[in-house]
Amino acid sequence: MRLLVVGGVAAGLSAASRARRVDPSLEIVVLEKGQRISYGACGLPYWIEGQVKSVDQLTVYTPEFFEKERNIRVRTGCEVTAVQHSRREILLRTGERIHYDKLIWAAGARPVEAARGERVFTLHTDLDAARLQAFLQNKQPKSAAVIGGGYIGLEMATALRARGLNVTVYHDGLSLLGRDEEWLTKKVTERLARCRVELLMNTRAPSLESLPHDLILLAKGLQPNVEVLREAGAELGRTGAFQTTDRMETTLGGIYAAGDCCESQHVVSGRPVWLPLGTTANKMGRVAGANAAGARERFPGIAGTSIVRIGGLAVGMTGLSAMQARRDGFTPVEVLVEGRDRPRYFLGRTVSVCLVADKNSKRLLGASVVGDDGALPRINVVATALAARMRMEDFAEVDMAYAPPYATAADPLMVAAQQLAKLVD
Amino acid sequence: MRLLVVGGVAAGLSAASRARRVDPSLEIVVLEKGQRISYGACGLPYWIEGQVKSVDQLTVYTPEFFEKERNIRVRTGCEVTAVQHSRREILLRTGERIHYDKLIWAAGARPVEAARGERVFTLHTDLDAARLQAFLQNKQPKSAAVIGGGYIGLEMATALRARGLNVTVYHDGLSLLGRDEEWLTKKVTERLARCRVELLMNTRAPSLESLPHDLILLAKGLQPNVEVLREAGAELGRTGAFQTTDRMETTLGGIYAAGDCCESQHVVSGRPVWLPLGTTANKMGRVAGANAAGARERFPGIAGTSIVRIGGLAVGMTGLSAMQARRDGFTPVEVLVEGRDRPRYFLGRTVSVCLVADKNSKRLLGASVVGDDGALPRINVVATALAARMRMEDFAEVDMAYAPPYATAADPLMVAAQQLAKLVD
Repeated sequence: MRLLVVGGVAAGLSAASRARRVDPSLEIVVLEKGQRISYGACGLPYWIEGQVKSVDQLTVYTPEFFEKERNIRVRTGCEVTAVQHSRREILLRTGERIHYDKLIWAAGARPVEAARGERVFTLHTDLDAARLQAFLQNKQPKSAAVIGGGYIGLEMATALRARGLNVTVYHDGLSLLGRDEEWLTKKVTERLARCRVELLMNTRAPSLESLPHDLILLAKGLQPNVEVLREAGAELGRTGAFQTTDRMETTLGGIYAAGDCCESQHVVSGRPVWLPLGTTANKMGRVAGANAAGARERFPGIAGTSIVRIGGLAVGMTGLSAMQARRDGFTPVEVLVEGRDRPRYFLGRTVSVCLVADKNSKRLLGASVVGDDGALPRINVVATALAARMRMEDFAEVDMAYAPPYATAADPLMVAAQQLAKLVD
Repeated sequence: MRLLVVGGVAAGLSAASRARRVDPSLEIVVLEKGQRISYGACGLPYWIEGQVKSVDQLTVYTPEFFEKERNIRVRTGCEVTAVQHSRREILLRTGERIHYDKLIWAAGARPVEAARGERVFTLHTDLDAARLQAFLQNKQPKSAAVIGGGYIGLEMATALRARGLNVTVYHDGLSLLGRDEEWLTKKVTERLARCRVELLMNTRAPSLESLPHDLILLAKGLQPNVEVLREAGAELGRTGAFQTTDRMETTLGGIYAAGDCCESQHVVSGRPVWLPLGTTANKMGRVAGANAAGARERFPGIAGTSIVRIGGLAVGMTGLSAMQARRDGFTPVEVLVEGRDRPRYFLGRTVSVCLVADKNSKRLLGASVVGDDGALPRINVVATALAARMRMEDFAEVDMAYAPPYATAADPLMVAAQQLAKLVD
């Protein structure tokens, strides 16, 4: 009985490891297209920035570790070009055919626009980062254009700024970071200005050829790697990523999918969403691995919880913004509260909390939190409340910890919760 | 219609403020025994330590603020010595009688053993702290004995150590901080040793007269201020504090109680508990104030969530320990996981998470978290899950935020949750 896993980063390795724990006798083979497995791709901007000294610091496990410690065979440099499910076979670019009994597709995603030309980059894989790193060292570029105001675009804009480049961000939209909240975009805009990053909002970048910058970073978003398995018959959802059951099984029985190549259900709206993030890839991978190995587990979906650092500013979000909630059929009510994360005498810093609830069901729907510090704890508390489908009156009374070195007695999150509980009452 | 509030710190002022918002026409009078209202008593150890420069920094509002901004009359130096509920009247020590229509009793708590003698102190009120501060400055004591290994005892032991005193803590028990967890006591013990605070576990302090130290701090715990209202007929619960409905009404109709003088229901066990903490005092106060003013609100109870800093170590706890859970009739299962709060390259520090769940109901029951940093966010997440009565399988899949500057992809809390979900499955 052979389980084949396509993809050796977050979802694929989580899947393989979990399958091994469920079934010690299974033969497990992981095929990775690249040369490196198990690296924290989310850390790549920090390698460029200089916080991480080498890409090796981002690598968690080696193929040898998987072979020896988990009895999982890992083959790098293996690109799958076709799947023939009727014969339970995949085809590699080299022409080699490999049989499987169960297949987990964790092929990830890729930038919507690939980099072409010496001065044009994307930042998705270790190779992208290495090429950019070498360019920065060897060519000493003075100016950079970043195309896109999402996570990677803004993290990289401040990373390149920290390396001394003059940076211009072209963002073809009115809201940054994919969150349609005016106050949040304003906070981020202010921080970018303070970092002296030039931000052109609602501006489509000119053709790459006409950009005068020494370096161009394309950060226009990702698309799921679905082509090969779609060709084999697996159906996509309306997000354009693979549709799966809550067991992570695709529409082809016996083939599971996990990570950035598949969509999932939003825990608040119940709708399919595609949000490629590392932590959810790990979670989906574990469920896919367990089920492929014969267990019965369920992936409950995602809240889209994320956090990003932009020039020292933490920006966290989870669940739905008011505008998203309205589009999803809710009647959203929101409050925005600004306060300190700790008392003034413990050097408390400003943190802003926006909470959204539904006037009809009185349920909490989402939050965004922006601050020099203090975004992570509050976003995770809200993510927990979303998973539990809490109503505002219950959420507003949660018994939070308080001591002067760590919190204030009237935390902005709880002040917001109490105000919002009244508004939906 | 006059609402009388006895007590002008956390619960009393929250109650008065909330009552004002509910009923703008109500006459509201707050009687405070001391001279100062609305100060953050939890900050007093940090005044001794030196982090807070003056007690004024801890004072949030003045009586003038309440008069002008909220139309609430505040009278300081007013000690209530009797309540005659049949006549709706209270008696002050001065002999003055004051009529009420509704009464909120927020008289707080006091140390179980009062300080007697020049070198003996407690740390409960601003006056206690001011006397201790003056003693430290004028007498330059070299050594201190701290009696009691609870929050105040240990915070004060390290605060006095930071002021250069040699400190010995006498603790008459096997577990510190009121949490019967061996690993947690060990972590705290190690930190105290690193701070060169001498800790005598399971040791009853000798008589105060025979202690050779220049300064003695009594930190043997608190007792609720119940005498006057009990005399008037309000019943105590089995914890020794006032019993109330979930509307915060005592057994005397029309008299509410809030804060450190009353017990509440534990959200996990459903049992009455008495845990005098500032944040819960604020919450109870708001509910008491709302109901006394004619609204109908409910206090859902507490999880006993708290956090304390001991020599830089954060110790957080919420819900039940395994031993408490067993005493309360659960079948507890627990895991202890140690990890980093952030990646190594972002200077991640060790954080230890102990999670407890019930084997039968599969519900999360409690947690304790110890670390140089990172205890607060994890404790608050668990407190939220406890309020929502989450089952382990759901809690283990909560969609938490991840980015290298703020978290690792395999957070110790979530690793513990996944392990525990398997154990109760």
